[in-house]
Amino acid sequence: MSQDDLRVKGFLAAAVKSGIRGKKRLDLGLIYSEKPAAAAAVFTTNRVKAAPVLLGMERISSGYAQAILVNSGIANACTGDQGMEAARKCSGLVSRALSIPDDLVLVSSTGVIGQQLDLACFEGAMDRLTAGLDPEGIPRVARAMMTTDTVQKTAVRDIVLDGKKVRLAGIAKGAGMIMPNMATMLCYVLTDAKISPRLLQEMLGKGVDHSFNSITVDGDTSTNDTVFVLANSAAGNTAVDDLEEGADIFEKALNEVLRELALKIVADGEGATKEITIKIAGAADLAQAKAAAMTVANSNLVKTAFFGEDANWGRIIAALGRSGAEFDPQAVDISFDDVVLVRDGLGLGAEAEQRAASILRKKKIVLGIDLKAGHSGFEAFTCDFSVDYVKINADYRT
Amino acid sequence: MSQDDLRVKGFLAAAVKSGIRGKKRLDLGLIYSEKPAAAAAVFTTNRVKAAPVLLGMERISSGYAQAILVNSGIANACTGDQGMEAARKCSGLVSRALSIPDDLVLVSSTGVIGQQLDLACFEGAMDRLTAGLDPEGIPRVARAMMTTDTVQKTAVRDIVLDGKKVRLAGIAKGAGMIMPNMATMLCYVLTDAKISPRLLQEMLGKGVDHSFNSITVDGDTSTNDTVFVLANSAAGNTAVDDLEEGADIFEKALNEVLRELALKIVADGEGATKEITIKIAGAADLAQAKAAAMTVANSNLVKTAFFGEDANWGRIIAALGRSGAEFDPQAVDISFDDVVLVRDGLGLGAEAEQRAASILRKKKIVLGIDLKAGHSGFEAFTCDFSVDYVKINADYRT
Repeated sequence: MSQDDLRVKGFLAAAVKSGIRGKKRLDLGLIYSEKPAAAAAVFTTNRVKAAPVLLGMERISSGYAQAILVNSGIANACTGDQGMEAARKCSGLVSRALSIPDDLVLVSSTGVIGQQLDLACFEGAMDRLTAGLDPEGIPRVARAMMTTDTVQKTAVRDIVLDGKKVRLAGIAKGAGMIMPNMATMLCYVLTDAKISPRLLQEMLGKGVDHSFNSITVDGDTSTNDTVFVLANSAAGNTAVDDLEEGADIFEKALNEVLRELALKIVADGEGATKEITIKIAGAADLAQAKAAAMTVANSNLVKTAFFGEDANWGRIIAALGRSGAEFDPQAVDISFDDVVLVRDGLGLGAEAEQRAASILRKKKIVLGIDLKAGHSGFEAFTCDFSVDYVKINADYRT
Repeated sequence: MSQDDLRVKGFLAAAVKSGIRGKKRLDLGLIYSEKPAAAAAVFTTNRVKAAPVLLGMERISSGYAQAILVNSGIANACTGDQGMEAARKCSGLVSRALSIPDDLVLVSSTGVIGQQLDLACFEGAMDRLTAGLDPEGIPRVARAMMTTDTVQKTAVRDIVLDGKKVRLAGIAKGAGMIMPNMATMLCYVLTDAKISPRLLQEMLGKGVDHSFNSITVDGDTSTNDTVFVLANSAAGNTAVDDLEEGADIFEKALNEVLRELALKIVADGEGATKEITIKIAGAADLAQAKAAAMTVANSNLVKTAFFGEDANWGRIIAALGRSGAEFDPQAVDISFDDVVLVRDGLGLGAEAEQRAASILRKKKIVLGIDLKAGHSGFEAFTCDFSVDYVKINADYRT
């Protein structure tokens, strides 16, 4: 199976250059399910929500959807009533072009905040979009929604449910404004499984906790973050709701797709040169484990030290100390991969630092932290913080 | 009065090259009050506290101190029992050299976490330090405690209390790991005023809220932050405690010194090219005003946009949206100096952005935000986030 074989029975997709981002870039994508699909969603927790998020929150309550329209370049956030009207008009264009009910259309936008969408771009592109709909079109949508991403992000799992072959295919974008509670990040997972909207939503809600809500690039939370999962029943399986083992298999596959996409977002973090897994053990409870993991994952000083390949564990322990997690500073262990660097709060000296420094030259690093204050753990995923992050973000709009 | 005239009656100071940081850098300073001085302190809120902080917390409870020893290069943090013993031994060296009680000696350290102090440096330097004690020595201590600071930070106020001339002179260091709740930051304020330890502590506690606890460079909180205020009564005034107007005058001068030093720390933030004041108005309460101000002040995306001189107000509003402060996104006003850029949540267009862009080319910028959700306000101080911040922190230990 090629990396880019994202075909899922009953789904078609297309992407075009609509002009939102000039003439040379794919910037508008459309995903279409031949039949209405069970739909679940998770949205940004930011108080400031972009127009497409507000519309999506309204639409998803029905539990069904049939199309997703996504543009990059402009986020349609902080655009007031005009922005909401634009989101509705975009939805209307899709509804008419595909002859499906307006309230089965979901829209997403990603890009610069505070600018209005140019509806002419959408109107001018709609015929080409619908004409281009194709079972093999999903990777093109993944490309069309990229902003500062350098690679498209996809994940696929094939499972068997009730004797039927079922596929889950996911695409995601997001490289900056990435942080727990949904980041500047769009993710769509398409599956031909049959499953109720209620169960799908329940599985998605749990799944994002250990995928998208465990990653951070820069600690900023976007106004547009959205995960949509569409399940169109085309595989012909008995509903996942009525399967015991099958439900576990489906949930595991969904979690794997979500996690793979989340990790790909971190790996492609703006300016990132390293992928870092932060494994907290021994926390007093889950909330403290997560607080400890995310505080370390978001520390600029920790992240610049990783970029500099400097085993500066003092910054790690200082971040733990302000995380709110309870622990005895004289009990903490810290390791890089299998090299223990700190035992009971004390550095193990030059030799351990040298061995740790050689670990730091790797691209993927596991930072292990044992707080020895209890039995809870949490894994967070982050990247290092490079000179290029600043360059990318100082120049983003210019 | 020269910028560097920090003489305060009854205080002597000296600094030497002790060898902690090689042979060429001042790295050890001593401040000595001819008489025991009323003393107040504020320390880091980080759960991980350096040995000198732990010792200082113990010592300050008496309300009096007579000497402060400070070294740069090594923070003596995460150094366990050996580190505590080293802090006590350093204190003992000062106590013997000056013939003052050990428990009137305060010690501070700043630098790399996790390394042990080399006591030989302290022992070898003590004679030169005490021999060099001089009323004009305070600026040299300010230099000796610099780490990634590029300039020494001092502030002086002269007031009249009860007919007597009184001076407050402060020195501070700190350029990274700067964030509310006391940052990698040392600050000493010396005054010849007579004031009780209790009132001094009360005034200091209030004063840091609107000075050191309102600044941020990188959101990291250090293990070593300390503010000491010593008041040695040499001016001969009636105790500030017994003055009505005089107490206000003293508190105002103390606040001004603290604030001036805090702002100098931000201006010298690692890699900083701009000083940004974030003025929140219209918050529902003070806690929300502070949360809004500090979230914007700590946003990497906001800070890189300032570095890039990009009037990217979407990042500001996105940071407000995740701050926890309540507000209606369609009511917020945002301005740069006197240029209103956003009114009622909407951008005012290209002309306003152009005018804002010209403001952004300035070195000092006031970012005004009206949440229109209440009547509370807060001012925070930050700097922009440059390529050099990353370079400085990737290379700090090498």
